[in-house]
Amino acid sequence: MAERFSFVNDWLLRAVRRVAGNPGVRIDLQGRNLPAPAILYRDRAALVRSILGGECGFGDGYANGHVRVDGDLVTVLEEVYRSLRAAHSPTWLERSLKRVRLLAHPNSRAGARRNIHRHYDIGTGFYRLWLDRDLVYTCAYFDDPEMTLEEAQQAKMDLVCRKLGLRSGERVVEAGCGWGSLALHMARNYGVVVRAYNISADQICWARQRAREEEITGRVEFVEDDYRSITGKYDVFVSIGMLEHVGASNYAELGRVIHRAVGASGRGLLHFIGRDRPEPLSPWINQRIFPGAYAPTLAEMLPLLEPWEYSVLDVENLRPHYAHTLQHWLKRYERAYSKVVAQFGEEFARAWHLYLAGSVAAFRAKTLQLFQVLFAGRECAFMPWTRKALYAWPTEAPCAAATF
Amino acid sequence: MAERFSFVNDWLLRAVRRVAGNPGVRIDLQGRNLPAPAILYRDRAALVRSILGGECGFGDGYANGHVRVDGDLVTVLEEVYRSLRAAHSPTWLERSLKRVRLLAHPNSRAGARRNIHRHYDIGTGFYRLWLDRDLVYTCAYFDDPEMTLEEAQQAKMDLVCRKLGLRSGERVVEAGCGWGSLALHMARNYGVVVRAYNISADQICWARQRAREEEITGRVEFVEDDYRSITGKYDVFVSIGMLEHVGASNYAELGRVIHRAVGASGRGLLHFIGRDRPEPLSPWINQRIFPGAYAPTLAEMLPLLEPWEYSVLDVENLRPHYAHTLQHWLKRYERAYSKVVAQFGEEFARAWHLYLAGSVAAFRAKTLQLFQVLFAGRECAFMPWTRKALYAWPTEAPCAAATF
Repeated sequence: MAERFSFVNDWLLRAVRRVAGNPGVRIDLQGRNLPAPAILYRDRAALVRSILGGECGFGDGYANGHVRVDGDLVTVLEEVYRSLRAAHSPTWLERSLKRVRLLAHPNSRAGARRNIHRHYDIGTGFYRLWLDRDLVYTCAYFDDPEMTLEEAQQAKMDLVCRKLGLRSGERVVEAGCGWGSLALHMARNYGVVVRAYNISADQICWARQRAREEEITGRVEFVEDDYRSITGKYDVFVSIGMLEHVGASNYAELGRVIHRAVGASGRGLLHFIGRDRPEPLSPWINQRIFPGAYAPTLAEMLPLLEPWEYSVLDVENLRPHYAHTLQHWLKRYERAYSKVVAQFGEEFARAWHLYLAGSVAAFRAKTLQLFQVLFAGRECAFMPWTRKALYAWPTEAPCAAATF
Repeated sequence: MAERFSFVNDWLLRAVRRVAGNPGVRIDLQGRNLPAPAILYRDRAALVRSILGGECGFGDGYANGHVRVDGDLVTVLEEVYRSLRAAHSPTWLERSLKRVRLLAHPNSRAGARRNIHRHYDIGTGFYRLWLDRDLVYTCAYFDDPEMTLEEAQQAKMDLVCRKLGLRSGERVVEAGCGWGSLALHMARNYGVVVRAYNISADQICWARQRAREEEITGRVEFVEDDYRSITGKYDVFVSIGMLEHVGASNYAELGRVIHRAVGASGRGLLHFIGRDRPEPLSPWINQRIFPGAYAPTLAEMLPLLEPWEYSVLDVENLRPHYAHTLQHWLKRYERAYSKVVAQFGEEFARAWHLYLAGSVAAFRAKTLQLFQVLFAGRECAFMPWTRKALYAWPTEAPCAAATF
């Protein structure tokens, strides 16, 4: 039967290749024993699902084993990302439809809680298998590419603190604090008082435990609540890897929250995954991994600062550092793979493998960016004369803030 | 008579004070012998013109001497800028009207030529009175605040070249090259081949003369033409202080020009005066000094890069450096004041004094920003691993470009 209708298979394979922009990897049915790199479909049904379901069809097929990849997964996915881009520039209508879809999924408080629960409350044990010691689940900063992941996450936290020019005794509010590593780092090493918000119960619980162990509960407070509930007055606002979960329709409100918290005399830093042009995240990532997430362009995100007259002082694109960070995570994940399978099953393990490898590929293929945006209000005295001091550490003192 | 109707004067003075947001300087009629700082109107007619004409009324009144300032001009203007901002946040309608007015003055090729001629063809002799030796008429970079203006302009040009990671043999196109200082600097010190465009005949003539004197005509070409006429293929696009003259309605076209010139494998840098929120330039500056000019926010300007998938790599705000540069210019201008009066008359000399002092005040009061935006295309191999090498000069080699 398969033999008799092999022309159908060939037609379907050609269709898949065309949809993928004819990448420089083989796309075929399993069992044909072709040399790597290759994407191999188990059968005709898997091929059809991949065509009808687009990226979701491919992702789900990979997770349940109906699609396999021979050769290095990152390299294959990077090639597909590049060929997809080269093959297809979305039309104005397609872009508009994507934006409508995006606005149709606002992250209400309840929705945000559901979305965040799904990703971050898988259990801290899972993330401990492949993140660094401090469970920093955002882009690291490899001052030197040979650094360990642990060192690079410390360097990232120091880079953020130095960009912000933290001074002892200042009050900092953090929106979306993960397992609390940055809040603890700031309180411990920069003498500031931090209040950190997060709607993931598991993460907040972990962070509070660490604060107790380190005996710095007096200088850091973890609040299980939405960023929209931030109260109090602060000198500094910081948010690392939360903007992706905020959703474009809530940027104006985030701007109001920032201004309410730090006013015209405050300053802040936003660190987030971004884009070069407006585009939704991969639908598979949005469905299976990060519900409700969106990576904005700078032009989409910066208007949230405008009504409050915040000056943008510095924007840095750390894209290569995120590719490098993800490669570290991927390597650790692969080492822990059998444990993941034992605890969460094969399908979950394959899905997360695809997500991590696909993310390395996306940053390498430059379809994702990582922006750090530093800003300061009109009445804020902080404005370093140059950025030199950022690169003189750890030998020099924290960067001197030139009042201006 | 003046005595009999002094209540009218008092009423007018109160109105002027209110319009200016009740600044912390005296506003009064001349002859009252009040201590500085003070803004003094010659008579009732000058007061009325100032109320009816807004900033233009004030500027013209200052130029023709009907309005005088006692005390430090910069300090007084800075105080007025701050009080104006504090007093008055424009309504949605006002902002919309301003934008309509802005779009009503597109910089067509003929219009651009007229506008540029008016400002830059006053005669090179005039600018030689108060600019640096190389006639760099854009924000300098004071690696150290004690640097001379000459040193700081060299440092700015090196900062730009290093941000761009210029390599010997590369082709650079410059849009809006002034008197050619950057093009000459790049060709002389970085071994690149530069083609530089400018629509000011005087400036192009001067630049060509310098290239002949330095005997580097083979590596630098000055073209008297509009940026929209740029032809040829290049590795690098650079534009220092031209975007302000392009006008918001022409950004999309500038994006097309950049992409036509350097494509997806190129990179570039835009250096321009910007804003924290959308706002037209002072109407007086627009009428008397810089016709057709507009300083955009980052969010207004960045969309010009999006259709071409340029990645923003680095944005730096050099606002304090522009205030410092303008102070240097102002000091030199004041030293040359009698020469300006002799050559161009008192009114011209006073108008330019107000413009320079007002610009120092605007950057100090943070109503103007200076952005440098570095970007690179999808196929561009240039992406420094960190910004460290920018701050290691001149001891280290030009920053190593990490291919990625």
